[in-house]
Amino acid sequence: MASFRLGPLTHSVPMSLFRKNREKLCAALKEHSAIKPKAHVLLAGGDDVSFNDTDVSYPFRQESYFQYLFGVKEPGCYGVLNVHTGISNLFVPRLPEEYATWMGKLYTCEEFKRMYEVDEVRYVDELNSFFTSAQPSVILTLSGLNTDSGIVSKPARFEGIEKFIVDCEILHPVIAECRVIKSPEEIEVLRYVAKVSSDAHIRVMQFMRPGRSEYEGEAVFLHHAYAVGGCRHASYTCICGSGVNSAVLHYGHAGAPNDGPVRDGDMCLFDMGANYCGYAADITCSFPANGKFTEDQKFIYNAVLAGRNAVLAEAREGVSWVDMHKLACRVMLRKLKEGGMLKGEVEDMLDAGLAGIFQPHGLGHLLGLDVHDVGGYLTGHPERPAEPWLCKLRFARTLKAGMYVTVEPGCYFIEYLMDRALADPNLNRFIVKEVYERFRKFGGVRIEDDVLIKDVGCENFAKVPRTVEEIEQTMANRKE
Amino acid sequence: MASFRLGPLTHSVPMSLFRKNREKLCAALKEHSAIKPKAHVLLAGGDDVSFNDTDVSYPFRQESYFQYLFGVKEPGCYGVLNVHTGISNLFVPRLPEEYATWMGKLYTCEEFKRMYEVDEVRYVDELNSFFTSAQPSVILTLSGLNTDSGIVSKPARFEGIEKFIVDCEILHPVIAECRVIKSPEEIEVLRYVAKVSSDAHIRVMQFMRPGRSEYEGEAVFLHHAYAVGGCRHASYTCICGSGVNSAVLHYGHAGAPNDGPVRDGDMCLFDMGANYCGYAADITCSFPANGKFTEDQKFIYNAVLAGRNAVLAEAREGVSWVDMHKLACRVMLRKLKEGGMLKGEVEDMLDAGLAGIFQPHGLGHLLGLDVHDVGGYLTGHPERPAEPWLCKLRFARTLKAGMYVTVEPGCYFIEYLMDRALADPNLNRFIVKEVYERFRKFGGVRIEDDVLIKDVGCENFAKVPRTVEEIEQTMANRKE
Repeated sequence: MASFRLGPLTHSVPMSLFRKNREKLCAALKEHSAIKPKAHVLLAGGDDVSFNDTDVSYPFRQESYFQYLFGVKEPGCYGVLNVHTGISNLFVPRLPEEYATWMGKLYTCEEFKRMYEVDEVRYVDELNSFFTSAQPSVILTLSGLNTDSGIVSKPARFEGIEKFIVDCEILHPVIAECRVIKSPEEIEVLRYVAKVSSDAHIRVMQFMRPGRSEYEGEAVFLHHAYAVGGCRHASYTCICGSGVNSAVLHYGHAGAPNDGPVRDGDMCLFDMGANYCGYAADITCSFPANGKFTEDQKFIYNAVLAGRNAVLAEAREGVSWVDMHKLACRVMLRKLKEGGMLKGEVEDMLDAGLAGIFQPHGLGHLLGLDVHDVGGYLTGHPERPAEPWLCKLRFARTLKAGMYVTVEPGCYFIEYLMDRALADPNLNRFIVKEVYERFRKFGGVRIEDDVLIKDVGCENFAKVPRTVEEIEQTMANRKE
Repeated sequence: MASFRLGPLTHSVPMSLFRKNREKLCAALKEHSAIKPKAHVLLAGGDDVSFNDTDVSYPFRQESYFQYLFGVKEPGCYGVLNVHTGISNLFVPRLPEEYATWMGKLYTCEEFKRMYEVDEVRYVDELNSFFTSAQPSVILTLSGLNTDSGIVSKPARFEGIEKFIVDCEILHPVIAECRVIKSPEEIEVLRYVAKVSSDAHIRVMQFMRPGRSEYEGEAVFLHHAYAVGGCRHASYTCICGSGVNSAVLHYGHAGAPNDGPVRDGDMCLFDMGANYCGYAADITCSFPANGKFTEDQKFIYNAVLAGRNAVLAEAREGVSWVDMHKLACRVMLRKLKEGGMLKGEVEDMLDAGLAGIFQPHGLGHLLGLDVHDVGGYLTGHPERPAEPWLCKLRFARTLKAGMYVTVEPGCYFIEYLMDRALADPNLNRFIVKEVYERFRKFGGVRIEDDVLIKDVGCENFAKVPRTVEEIEQTMANRKE
């Protein structure tokens, strides 16, 4: 039984996971009316990408659809799948013998076949001759819009493909839909990477304190994820904001590289997720830098936590994600009202769009091989809502068992949004200005869990302290 | 005085470093016969690169030429330099107010001007109007072959550039040559990143032992470099080979991701370098996994060390780099002969190309903003040697004070090269087969230092244990 595992103590991912993904795709394609026998899927794996014109590449991670079907580590490969027979062919680059000096042992096709448990392995330069003899009724290539980035994926090609009937429409919605519902084997990998990421978050929480810099927390996270969990990559750039920086949703980018000082009295909002064998975690912890919540910090934190708890209690098969978003907002606004920051009717606040001032992002997103996973707005599912406070949702579907989503309500004090709200009579009528103004430099709180949807209820894979008491207890247990 | 620094304890890089680089380039261009007043340099900074079609990007690092002149952290910028007046203009993306939610504070042009100490800051969409009113005699853009990757850089463009006289030939050799000789300010950054990387290597050496996995060493290195040194990026993918893997020159890539077990009796060859503010270190340490050299390990290690010591004793202004390569090979082969692995005359071995069997790579390379830095084979300097054992040299120039190079002799037992040598009567006449065969599974040794060339002698910035005794002493001092 071949598998991927980085070291003896890290999770073993059986290659049968990818075989089952292939079987699932074939079964789904066979139900498609346009698919006749001898239809073949052709996917291109990822390529090394040079850092500008240098001879250094960005760290390679496999393209996600290719990873989903083949689980192959190497760049420059292609994969072919006969839809009806299910026979899989992996095509690997033919490397000259001299490459052994630089790259190490050059595996034979037979060795690749055993390593990845595919039916056959050939060289990339044999794609044309393979298809010439396979006589496909159609070659299905992948082209579709990524609704998070707006980028359309480029269909695979090989020299001579114009001789064949090629369709680049059918495959994308079918394979994206396959990826939405996670298999038991995928769930085990996701559980593992969420656990590794959770443990890393706890380390960070116990490490941070006033006087340190934000990036030191990122360093602790990445180290634990890699050294202990075997996660060589993070799923996205670590967001490590403290103080006002914690209100910046995608803080940590090159222009704001987690370089702020962590000060006494700051909230920290650390959003970090490791990646193992392509599969992602995406977890956020918010905590006070000094280990003890102030009353104001408790107020905001508990408002967000209440929203999160409400969602975790309700999320299950059959529930609309848009309703979950509304639920979180409703609960959070109610708590902000109870704490004296807001006044008036919560339903009126929702109608006015006040929630989007506090939480300008959606409740969460699909999670899997991509951190913002595919399948959000496929044809035949609810479209993106038009309302300003809902339009940032990355999907609007009815939940199904096997979906894996983040639940990540947040409450932020973003200065230009605060000013906008205070200047807008439609919004400022709900705001108790003197209380609201007290939070101008507060930053923000986000609580983000990774949640598997089940027939009955849901399961949270993020195992981190969540209540005020749990967080204070965890941070009190620091060594040093 | 504006500067870059990640945290209060990391090196402060003054923005005057980049101003001086700009002044140096202007002075060099003014000496060019084709340059008339109102000539302007136009450079494009790096852009965020999406990971396939997702909304995640590869970790952003600034394009090296742009970093050299402007030291700007943000993607999507352009820089313009009036060659005769020296006036610098930075062009930054114009971001909508909503970006503040995701990216944080949007700096004004005035703030960017103070942050980077350039003369003027405008928005990228103003490039056309800027040049229209500047009336440049020529716009110098960058296009040139990277002799390590074979990639030609793409010249900067903006809408409307076709109205102007544009030259993409003049700039590249001049700016590349500027980068070859390091300024005092650059040298301080290089010294810092080499020290951080050296300390990280020592940590790794004290951490590794039989039973661990190779990637754990990578994790320790990256953590120290980031947490202590503030180096968010490595300059290249870490190479952490043990046992036979240590003979794979670019081990550690995605297909061989440092996932081997470290065994008792193995040599470890760890080649890792951090990056700070764009500037690179590139250091290799070779050491026994269990902390004690065997006689065979000492034999190979000391042969390489002797080659390295000979080069460090000779390298200085006026010396040919090709001669340094030959010197290292000569000394190493002599030691291998003294140890009984080779027989015959060392000069005959060199003529036969035997050195290339043991060390298939060049002695070293220029080092700076790129790990394989630019300027290796510029016109007017010695061309790439044709001989098989010299043709891998990444440069063949006469050394000049201010050049910064790696000195990295190595001795490897690469099976297909061993078999090739043993089958070649031109080579096997020098080989004592029974000794040579004993090393078939040995792996390799590389000793790589980062060396500043001076008028008299040179200075090694890699501060790591190098003799057998120093390494054993360092490893004996492990904490558990």
